[in-house]
Amino acid sequence: MDADSSSGGGRHVFRPWSAQGGEAPLTVAGAQGSWFWDRDGNRYLDLASQLVNVNLGHQHPRLLAAIAEQARELCTIGPNFSNDTRDRLALLIAERAPGDLDRVFFTNAGTEANEHAVRMARLATGRSKVLTAYRSYHGATAGSITLTGDPRRWPNEPGLPGVVHFFGPYAYRTAFHAEDERQECERALGHLEQVFQMEGPHTVAAVLLETVVGTNGVLVPPDGYLAGVRELCDRHGALLICDEVMVGFGRIGEWFAVDAWQVVPDLITFAKGVNSGYVPLGGVVMSERVAAAFDDRVYPGGLTYSGHPLACAPGIATIEVFEETGMLEHVRRLGREVLGPGLAKLADNHPSVGEVRGRGLFWAIELVRDRATREPLVPFNASGAAAGPMAAVMNSCVAEGVWPMCQMNRIHLAPPLVITEDELRRGLDAIDAALRTADTYVTA
Amino acid sequence: MDADSSSGGGRHVFRPWSAQGGEAPLTVAGAQGSWFWDRDGNRYLDLASQLVNVNLGHQHPRLLAAIAEQARELCTIGPNFSNDTRDRLALLIAERAPGDLDRVFFTNAGTEANEHAVRMARLATGRSKVLTAYRSYHGATAGSITLTGDPRRWPNEPGLPGVVHFFGPYAYRTAFHAEDERQECERALGHLEQVFQMEGPHTVAAVLLETVVGTNGVLVPPDGYLAGVRELCDRHGALLICDEVMVGFGRIGEWFAVDAWQVVPDLITFAKGVNSGYVPLGGVVMSERVAAAFDDRVYPGGLTYSGHPLACAPGIATIEVFEETGMLEHVRRLGREVLGPGLAKLADNHPSVGEVRGRGLFWAIELVRDRATREPLVPFNASGAAAGPMAAVMNSCVAEGVWPMCQMNRIHLAPPLVITEDELRRGLDAIDAALRTADTYVTA
Repeated sequence: MDADSSSGGGRHVFRPWSAQGGEAPLTVAGAQGSWFWDRDGNRYLDLASQLVNVNLGHQHPRLLAAIAEQARELCTIGPNFSNDTRDRLALLIAERAPGDLDRVFFTNAGTEANEHAVRMARLATGRSKVLTAYRSYHGATAGSITLTGDPRRWPNEPGLPGVVHFFGPYAYRTAFHAEDERQECERALGHLEQVFQMEGPHTVAAVLLETVVGTNGVLVPPDGYLAGVRELCDRHGALLICDEVMVGFGRIGEWFAVDAWQVVPDLITFAKGVNSGYVPLGGVVMSERVAAAFDDRVYPGGLTYSGHPLACAPGIATIEVFEETGMLEHVRRLGREVLGPGLAKLADNHPSVGEVRGRGLFWAIELVRDRATREPLVPFNASGAAAGPMAAVMNSCVAEGVWPMCQMNRIHLAPPLVITEDELRRGLDAIDAALRTADTYVTA
Repeated sequence: MDADSSSGGGRHVFRPWSAQGGEAPLTVAGAQGSWFWDRDGNRYLDLASQLVNVNLGHQHPRLLAAIAEQARELCTIGPNFSNDTRDRLALLIAERAPGDLDRVFFTNAGTEANEHAVRMARLATGRSKVLTAYRSYHGATAGSITLTGDPRRWPNEPGLPGVVHFFGPYAYRTAFHAEDERQECERALGHLEQVFQMEGPHTVAAVLLETVVGTNGVLVPPDGYLAGVRELCDRHGALLICDEVMVGFGRIGEWFAVDAWQVVPDLITFAKGVNSGYVPLGGVVMSERVAAAFDDRVYPGGLTYSGHPLACAPGIATIEVFEETGMLEHVRRLGREVLGPGLAKLADNHPSVGEVRGRGLFWAIELVRDRATREPLVPFNASGAAAGPMAAVMNSCVAEGVWPMCQMNRIHLAPPLVITEDELRRGLDAIDAALRTADTYVTA
């Protein structure tokens, strides 16, 4: 990429999560399916689905048609009125959500969804505390950034009172001195039970966790973990909130990721994949029990664009496309037969690969300097020169024509769900080549 | 309206700011310009612009064309890339924002804009406290609802630490025993200076206020107030944040409402009118000084849809339409020649009208039981039966074919800026008729 000719002139744009004096970002001129390109015609395979949101790829004709049709009919209407498009998407989501999760509160995106889910849980239980995991991300508004368990929280403290962090399962870097996944699961549940006891079980409104942890490492819960958390919540009268902003709507080959473990939370938050982010949309789907707490009492929260028709229309189209094309099975098959085995092979061939893990089309490659000690390729929360090796790895990916998401010492792969087997194999070849850069930093 | 045939079937939709067991809202079937209608063809003049957002009215052809064109080109791209549509809107906003407010951070809506503005102010100053007004609304996420100074905050407490509320000017119900507007202004500034002193001026990062207070009463600041607050902030090294989510983009006949008093804040937040809410969009426009605090330091906040192309495109079209049609002058003229004088006449004719106030196309009618004591038509924060008289007034408006926004003891009028003089006069006639209902509750 040629920074001079492709970089943006947007000097009036203040960029999120960035030092503004840094290098200008690449200007994207267009995109289609699993690809995007810059002004010079350099094409990149989008292995991150932007920020894990364009689940149906770029410029999907069915979503564009739904937007065009809704725009002609009615772009927007306030949430104090009723609207057929909004009603229809709520129905379709309720039909696909597990258990009796039948009521949908629509937001603009994931951070609001998490804030409102926590508010609902607190008011429905009459309790104040929320337990959330270290190594988690839940959004950037004041409530969600407090709920977050990674360094993005630090500059935003002190945050909202009543949030307590616990350690979730992460066998590769166990907090519990566990020797295998089964033991990690058992000990993580024992730890959470201890946190409940130390915090006072009767003070805990909810446990909030990402069903599969996203930007903090694609941490797939071991079998039994979610069921165990569900049981702990039930025992202590707390609600279980699953954040599926990244993993809902097909990312791991399920409508909702909890379906993979047949666990029914009390609330699920979603965004991104619900309409591939073509129009900002998120929401909370909740059980009838939670909703009933607000039958007679006013729910004290809202937003101007709740259930925005132009956002809901491509949501309806998304669900239709999923069903007509067998998308969930496509994702499961690509994960099982192509991406999983392909990454396992890369792990065999590259000494810098400490672990690969994931499910469906959501994977991480954890890079290390030393497989024996598991020393990460760059230190936790490294920036500047200390993060140099990961910047070099990302540059190699870009040079190979793929654009994954690099987080700390990891390459995250979350391609559009519409990616073909050929495209995915091409992506794996590019990552294979880029990993040679990572290998140069291996010390043992 | 016929509740049975027009009400929504959306039993899967959880509604904001509502008891879910209440009456189902009216289903809107379509809308155009200043009007919307239900399935039975009942038409309503939209005197609230939905939630004060459809500034260019419903289904404006230029905004629809901009959405259609952008959708064909590129619906969405992550904020980690650059995009011409986003860059262009940021430039157009920077050109119209006062002083050196030249950098734009885009969000999905107003609540996020306020949260990020406060975060920027805290980090840029290295101070923690934020002073905000009682009788204010800033949004419903955890930070913004804490900043809010009305009863919507109460069920959401305890909130974010470091927020202190003060009293702003409100001559009709003065907190300062003032006898006129000039005295109210002087005493409100004296009060704010005292709050600075009691909180420790060196601990105050910012004063946040609505340039014209919105849902808490359309409180237009007396001349000199905003300049006085600006001077206080300068003296104490605090930043001034003006929330223009409702009043930015033409509502009072100015690009930004602060222009009416020629005051330059450090940050302005906006949403709603920027693109009439056709696609969710908000943002913060900040001074170069604030932006420079993040030249070398990472700004710790962001969102997936920051600068969403499909949202920015109708923003560009909005600014073009404003300029091509002389919209700001149209709004000023309608306020000065039609709505202002019309409401003054209603005040003369209806004993229930305690005060009318406003500017441009943003007005409130404050209803009282007794003009001498100023006892409000319904008590502060009334609900259920106690709020009955206002429900009756709203029903009368709807029966007359107009849909204003009723808040506490007030009727708020904020029609689309594209409203014609004839439509506005028709709306005034309907309000005139509806006020007969209010008059029946007058006790003296």
